Amino acid sequence: MPVATFILPASLALQLLSAAAPAAKSAPKAVPAKPTVTAKRAAPVYAQATAEKLIGPALTDGHAYARLAELTDGIGPRLSGSPGAEAAVQWALRSFKADGVKAWLEPVKVPHWVRGEASGEVLASERTRGHPLALLALGGSPPTAPEGLTAEVVEVTSLEQLESLGAAVKGKFVFFNHTMTVAADYGRFAGLRSRGPAAAAKHGAVGALVRSLATASLRTPHTGATNFPSEGPRIPAASVATEDADLLHRLLAGGPVRVKLMLGSSELPDADSSNVVAEIRGREKPQEIVLIGAHLDSWDVGTGAHDDGAGVVMVMEAARLIAKLPQAPRRTVRVVLFMNEENGLRGGRAYAEAHAAELPRHVGALEMDAGGGRPVSVSVRAGEGGQDLLRPWLPPLTALGVTQFSAREAGGADISPLMPARVPFFGVEVDSSRYFDVHHTEADTLDKVDPQDLARSTAAVAWMTYALAEMPGTLTRPEAPAPRGPAPVTVPAQQSKTSGN
Amino acid sequence: MPVATFILPASLALQLLSAAAPAAKSAPKAVPAKPTVTAKRAAPVYAQATAEKLIGPALTDGHAYARLAELTDGIGPRLSGSPGAEAAVQWALRSFKADGVKAWLEPVKVPHWVRGEASGEVLASERTRGHPLALLALGGSPPTAPEGLTAEVVEVTSLEQLESLGAAVKGKFVFFNHTMTVAADYGRFAGLRSRGPAAAAKHGAVGALVRSLATASLRTPHTGATNFPSEGPRIPAASVATEDADLLHRLLAGGPVRVKLMLGSSELPDADSSNVVAEIRGREKPQEIVLIGAHLDSWDVGTGAHDDGAGVVMVMEAARLIAKLPQAPRRTVRVVLFMNEENGLRGGRAYAEAHAAELPRHVGALEMDAGGGRPVSVSVRAGEGGQDLLRPWLPPLTALGVTQFSAREAGGADISPLMPARVPFFGVEVDSSRYFDVHHTEADTLDKVDPQDLARSTAAVAWMTYALAEMPGTLTRPEAPAPRGPAPVTVPAQQSKTSGN
Repeated sequence: MPVATFILPASLALQLLSAAAPAAKSAPKAVPAKPTVTAKRAAPVYAQATAEKLIGPALTDGHAYARLAELTDGIGPRLSGSPGAEAAVQWALRSFKADGVKAWLEPVKVPHWVRGEASGEVLASERTRGHPLALLALGGSPPTAPEGLTAEVVEVTSLEQLESLGAAVKGKFVFFNHTMTVAADYGRFAGLRSRGPAAAAKHGAVGALVRSLATASLRTPHTGATNFPSEGPRIPAASVATEDADLLHRLLAGGPVRVKLMLGSSELPDADSSNVVAEIRGREKPQEIVLIGAHLDSWDVGTGAHDDGAGVVMVMEAARLIAKLPQAPRRTVRVVLFMNEENGLRGGRAYAEAHAAELPRHVGALEMDAGGGRPVSVSVRAGEGGQDLLRPWLPPLTALGVTQFSAREAGGADISPLMPARVPFFGVEVDSSRYFDVHHTEADTLDKVDPQDLARSTAAVAWMTYALAEMPGTLTRPEAPAPRGPAPVTVPAQQSKTSGN
Repeated sequence: MPVATFILPASLALQLLSAAAPAAKSAPKAVPAKPTVTAKRAAPVYAQATAEKLIGPALTDGHAYARLAELTDGIGPRLSGSPGAEAAVQWALRSFKADGVKAWLEPVKVPHWVRGEASGEVLASERTRGHPLALLALGGSPPTAPEGLTAEVVEVTSLEQLESLGAAVKGKFVFFNHTMTVAADYGRFAGLRSRGPAAAAKHGAVGALVRSLATASLRTPHTGATNFPSEGPRIPAASVATEDADLLHRLLAGGPVRVKLMLGSSELPDADSSNVVAEIRGREKPQEIVLIGAHLDSWDVGTGAHDDGAGVVMVMEAARLIAKLPQAPRRTVRVVLFMNEENGLRGGRAYAEAHAAELPRHVGALEMDAGGGRPVSVSVRAGEGGQDLLRPWLPPLTALGVTQFSAREAGGADISPLMPARVPFFGVEVDSSRYFDVHHTEADTLDKVDPQDLARSTAAVAWMTYALAEMPGTLTRPEAPAPRGPAPVTVPAQQSKTSGN
C-alpha cells in the first residue's frame, strides 16, 4: 500500500489553507460548496513528507512482524518474574539501542507466581463415567493439596447470585458460568474471574471454577488474574474451557456433580524486574512528554503475540521510525514497555510514582493493548476540543481504514495510574473482535497476528504519536477521575473491555 | 418444521401419475408445460403418512440429540479395547431393546492401543529459548524411551519428497508439513499421517511429527491412526498443532532445530469387543437386507460427538422410528454399529466375514461417518439407474435442504469390505465443512453438534432407509472394485475424504 508522493511544507500548507477557505465561500451557489478531496489534501497541518517517512516504511518493511517473531518465537512467554520476562527486558533494551533510540531500565518489584501442574476431572456418577476437564489455574491462585481437592459443584451466573446463596456454597466449588459470546461481552463478565473466587472464598467455598472468557474454543481454557484481598481467605481457582462449562451445566441439570481439582501453583517472593523506557528528545519542547506504552510481560501460556507482543512492537516501531526522521518532533516521545500488567500492574504504578514530578508535563499517553488487529479509529480522553485538535492529522490514515474517532475514551491498564495527574490519553483503536479467541491461552501465538493488520496499526500509532509530539498545541487536560474507595481488585474493575488484563 | 398432512396410498398415486402425464402434454402451448409443484406432489411413490411418521418425530422429538448426550456426556470416549468402548456396546444394546428393536452382539477382536502420557518440546538454540509442543501421539505409535527421544528435525511436504531425501533423514525426526485449509483437503494429506511415519522409519528416521489435519486450531492437535507394516520398523509418531508446525517451519528457515519427544503409549494384546447389530424384520422380503451403519468406537480424546456419535444416533433413530411404523417395510432393516473403525477396521471386516453368505442379499448399505452436519444431498453407488430409482423418494426431504444427488459415490470405511460382494451403497451426505475443526481432537464434544442439523440428518437417514427397504425394486449391483496389491495401510488409501479414519 504505497503512499502517494505529495510533499508540501507545513508552513506553505497553512498558507494554502487560509487562501483556499475564502475562495470556496465565494463559489457560485450552483456548485456544491462542500470541500473536495483535493481541497482537503491541499491544506495539511503537517508535512506530507513526514507522513510518508513514517507510514511508508511501517506498511512495507515488515519490521514490526519480524520483531514480533523475535519476541514470540525467540523469547516466548514472559510472565512477571520468569526467565522469559527478564529475557524480554534485555531484548527490548538491545533492540532500542540497535534502533538508535536511547533506552534504560527502571526497577519494578513484581509478583512471582508460578503455575506448576494442573488437572481436574468430573467424577463418575450415575449420569457419567466421568470426564477430564480442560482447565488452567487462574493467575494468583493458591495450590490445592498435592492429593487434590474434591467437592460438589454449585453453579452461579453472577456475583449477586453468589451473595444470595451465601453459606450454601460452603465446602463446595463455586462454578461461575456466563454467556460471553462476543468481544464486547468481556467487560460484563471479567469480574467473575477477577473477583468471583475471592467472593466465593468469603462464603466458605473451597474452590472456584470460572468459565473461560472466550469468543471461540476448541477445549481452550483462558487464564487471567484473580484477586484476593490480602486479609481474606484464598481458594484454588481455575478457568475451564467453555465446552467443559457447558458439560458441567448439563450434568448439573440432572443432579449433584463432584469435581476433583489439582493445582500445583506457587507464589514465590517478589522478584526484581524492570520497565523498559526509551526516549527521543524533543527538538523544541523536550520537557513536554508524549508517552506511548504497551506491556512487555505476558501470560505463561502461548507466547503473548496479541497480548501484548503486538502492542510492544507497535510502539517500538513508532519510536524507531520517528528516530529516523530528519528532525525530531517538537516534544519528547517516550516509550514505556511496562512490566506486570497481567498480574499486578506494578510497572504502571512504578512509572507513575517514579515520574510523579514529570506528570504535569506529560501532554499525552497511549497504551496499545488490544491485540494486533487492523486500526479502526482514533480515541482520545482529554478536556474540551480534543478531537478538534487531532482531526486535521487524520487524513494520512484514511487508506489504513482510520477516518473517525472512537465513541470510547482512550485508556489502558498501565497508564491508568496517570489519571489522577490528569494526563490526556490518546489511542489507536484496533479491531479486537477476534482478540478473545486467543486471549490468555496457549493459542496466542505469532500465526494469529496478520502481518498486514499489524503493519497498518503500527503505521497509525507512529503517525498519531508524531502528531501529538509535533502539533502546535496540546490536548487540554481531562478532569481527574472521582476518588474511589479501597477496591479488592488489582486491576480497576472499570477497565476498558479490551484491555489486556 | 411440521410436515403437511397429505395422505395418498402409493397405488392410487401411481394411477394419478399415469393419468396426469398425458393431460400435461395436451395443454395449450401458451401455458408452460413444466410440471408444477402440485402436480409433483400428486404422484408420490410412497405413502405421505409414512413420511410424516418418520420425518416429523425426527425433527421435533429431540431424541437423537438426547441420545447423543447419553453417549458423549454419559459414556465419553470409547477407543477400541477401552472400558468406554465396552460401556458403549452395552449402552447401545440396552437402547435398541428399549426401542423395541431386536439387537445382539457379534464378536470382534480389536487392537488395544493405550495413549499414555505425551509431551514434546523444541529445544533452546541461538534462535529460540525453546517451546513446548502441542501434540498427540498418533494411534498405533510405539512409545519413546522413558527419558524421551531427542533429534534434529527434517521437514518434508510429501511422501515423494521423503523418498528423494532417502538416507538423509537417518537419525532424525521427519516433520510432515502440508497446506490443508479446507475439509476437501483431507484426502490429499491424510496419507502423510497414515503412511508417512512408516515411510520415514524405512529410511532410518527415529521419529515422525505430522502437522494436524485441521481446518481450525487453537493449539489443537488432531490424532488419528498411523500404520506400520507388520514386517517394517516402527518409530514414535505424533501429530502437532498447526501452530506448532508453523513454528517448526519458521525456526527451520533459520537453521537446525532439535526436538525432544516423550510418548508413553503401549500396545496391549488384542481385546474382545463387539459389533452391535439390530434388526427390523421385513414384512414381505425379510431375506433382503438394507444395512445402515456407523461406528461406535471413537478416539480417546474428546467424546467423539461428531466422529461418530452423530452417525450412531442417526442410524439408531432411523431404526427406532421405522420400528414404530404401523407396519414394517418390505425388506429387513439392519443396523450395524461397527467397532474399531478408527484404528483397525476390525468390525467392518468381521461383519463382512461373518455375513459373507448373506451379502448377495444385502440390497443396500449406508454408513454415516462425516459428522452431525445438516443433510445436503443423497449419494448412491450402484449399477445403472440408481439415481432414477431413488429420485421419486426425494420430495419429503426438500424442506430439509436435500433436493439432489451428490457428485460423489456413497461409501464408508466400515462398509468398504462389502464392495467385493457388489453391495450397492447409498448415503445421506452432510455438510462436513467444519468437521475437521474438531475431528480426532479433545474438542469433538456435544456442544459442537447443532441439534437442528442433527435432527435434519436423522430425518433424512430414516427416510432414505425406509425408501430402500420399501421401494418395489432394488438398486442394481455395482461392479466389484478392481483387485489391489497388498497395501501397508490399515484403511484403504482411497477412503472417502470425509470418512472417519
